[in-house]
Amino acid sequence: MDNFAFYSPTYFAFGHGAEAQAGSLVRRFGGSRVLIHYGGGSAVRSGLIDRVKSSLEASGIPYTLLGGVKPNPRSGLVYEGIDLCRRERVDFVLAVGGGSAIDSAKAITAGAVYDGDFWDFYSGKPIENALPVGTILTIAAAGSEGSPDSVITLEDGMLKRGATGDAIRPRFSILNPALTQTLPPYQTACGITDIMAHLYERYLTNTPDVEVTDRLIEALLLTMIHEGPRVMADPDNYQARSNIMWAGMMAHNNSCGVGRTQDWNSHNIEHELSAKYDCAHGAGLAVTLPAVFTYVMEHDVMRFAQVAVRVWGCQMDFAHPEVTARAGIEALRAFLISLGMPRNLADLGADPADIPELVRVLCRGNGRNGAISGFVTLTEEDCANIYRLMV
Amino acid sequence: MDNFAFYSPTYFAFGHGAEAQAGSLVRRFGGSRVLIHYGGGSAVRSGLIDRVKSSLEASGIPYTLLGGVKPNPRSGLVYEGIDLCRRERVDFVLAVGGGSAIDSAKAITAGAVYDGDFWDFYSGKPIENALPVGTILTIAAAGSEGSPDSVITLEDGMLKRGATGDAIRPRFSILNPALTQTLPPYQTACGITDIMAHLYERYLTNTPDVEVTDRLIEALLLTMIHEGPRVMADPDNYQARSNIMWAGMMAHNNSCGVGRTQDWNSHNIEHELSAKYDCAHGAGLAVTLPAVFTYVMEHDVMRFAQVAVRVWGCQMDFAHPEVTARAGIEALRAFLISLGMPRNLADLGADPADIPELVRVLCRGNGRNGAISGFVTLTEEDCANIYRLMV
Repeated sequence: MDNFAFYSPTYFAFGHGAEAQAGSLVRRFGGSRVLIHYGGGSAVRSGLIDRVKSSLEASGIPYTLLGGVKPNPRSGLVYEGIDLCRRERVDFVLAVGGGSAIDSAKAITAGAVYDGDFWDFYSGKPIENALPVGTILTIAAAGSEGSPDSVITLEDGMLKRGATGDAIRPRFSILNPALTQTLPPYQTACGITDIMAHLYERYLTNTPDVEVTDRLIEALLLTMIHEGPRVMADPDNYQARSNIMWAGMMAHNNSCGVGRTQDWNSHNIEHELSAKYDCAHGAGLAVTLPAVFTYVMEHDVMRFAQVAVRVWGCQMDFAHPEVTARAGIEALRAFLISLGMPRNLADLGADPADIPELVRVLCRGNGRNGAISGFVTLTEEDCANIYRLMV
Repeated sequence: MDNFAFYSPTYFAFGHGAEAQAGSLVRRFGGSRVLIHYGGGSAVRSGLIDRVKSSLEASGIPYTLLGGVKPNPRSGLVYEGIDLCRRERVDFVLAVGGGSAIDSAKAITAGAVYDGDFWDFYSGKPIENALPVGTILTIAAAGSEGSPDSVITLEDGMLKRGATGDAIRPRFSILNPALTQTLPPYQTACGITDIMAHLYERYLTNTPDVEVTDRLIEALLLTMIHEGPRVMADPDNYQARSNIMWAGMMAHNNSCGVGRTQDWNSHNIEHELSAKYDCAHGAGLAVTLPAVFTYVMEHDVMRFAQVAVRVWGCQMDFAHPEVTARAGIEALRAFLISLGMPRNLADLGADPADIPELVRVLCRGNGRNGAISGFVTLTEEDCANIYRLMV
């Protein structure tokens, strides 16, 4: 196990009606003027935004609103939010929504206290200061409710890039599984896929002797395999939603990823798909993960055999571990398809003729120099081969 | 899953030489005058206390020392520490040691800012304020490095009782697995037992539909089963020590215990043993756990069968699940004995003739009225029967 620091100071309020705590939690964590940042109309139509407003009013906290966050959140709205925070002297940003609203809110909090262009943070500059941010989660997926990460798409060039820093970790996150019951099945499935991807990205490590984090990751994958089909068959199942929601947070606050190298190449490869085709991130991952794993499997066959046996219940082929390893990857693929996820680039609306351009932006954009590093360092040729496996 | 709040804001610095960060971490978390609180001579002899002093000096932080914490830490030293903190205007307590030093330090931090008797907190009064506390852990066991809990023994009557509150959660904890390499094998085994007990206490729940936390608990138990024998065979194994150390923290910061009722009757029953006979808490638990589980198994046979199959690798006897459930309990017992743990009351130096007195203090002491509640509510007769199973 490698040396590490772990710090996850977010306060989690979990359960039925937890959004009623919004006002008292903003107060507890030092907010006095709030920007409520949210996405489309569903948070309004469901009455959630009204309940949040009522909770803030009951605590005597003035607020201003900025809606309109889209999936794969864009830089334009971030600039708007930064201006609004400064103009209204906002001192706390409350994101209401999924990973997109939360990531956009995090970008706003970092940008609002920074003299330069907030995109600097998405080009490698460490985030050291930010306004405090809280979240009310409406989809279990991105894990942004407990993470120090944010991913934003720069409209100029459609570059999708991430930033990180403890300063943008939510001070509190409100997790009410009932808020996710009205999600369309496709979005629920995208969320399940994203959570499983966060687990696999941590599982693919080159650090030896990491039994405790291996086992924790496997535990969360087993949870998703158990609860995923249950929630797809019965979207109102509060208990299945609850297990998925906590697993989604635990999958990404890094308690199961400490002390080990991680991969994240599947995310990098997928980001080009959702940036260019505006497909759902989870849908892009469903196509990406099996392709990447098939391509890199030989790098550590026993690791893929381990997850196949421990998580997917495959029989170990002791004479041919690669058979077991491959069976685990195919079990993942079949599971994602069973949730209704796409199978290939065509299902995502992507054109194989674009592969050279996808590879160029992936491996040459934003300061990269021809390869992406992770579990296996992937050259431009490797990345092209992986995209071709998705055809 | 039940509604819950989860808050674990401790900063963890993990790895080789992490104790060198003591000074900068005290500074980061607001300390300017430190009480270093520790146990016996081993922390001094090993040079650890000197390294901690050097780190504080390098950060320009004055300190005072209070050693002498014993296993099953006593109220007397807590009163002494409270006086010392007030006299020296200490604003940060740094515990160096295991659960005893940390629990004693937590009691001091709560008592130092309270006008009444600190024992009030161990008699049910919530802890709302405390000086900040940090820890440098030297044994993976109690999980106090990441928990809001403290257990102290009142010398007047030898009552062993717990207190809890977010105010006594450590601001930071330094976890260097190498510091645990010099532990005597018996203490290492006691620590492993204590960690497994924290997991079982959470596993025994009456809350249905808690797949995610079931799986997380199982993951940590599997880790202990893998790493325990490895570290007993090779005490210098840094990697095995690392996996155990992180599992010990995760077992008790409650990330795997949220949203579910928990048991804690095994701890209650054991506390009378270590309070009366001053045996190691882990050793007492090794005798207690199989007895309690055997006694309460019928309350939920399938739960015991589940842990038997998923954790201990038992074959499921579908016609007779109680056979599987019992096999899992026996596997636990055999595992603990294989680590060198005691088998019965005699091994602990306890006298079966004392059982009526143990039961009286357990079920009637400190405001209890004849029973202890948990996974199963246990009457005085039940508790006596359980102690008799340990003979």
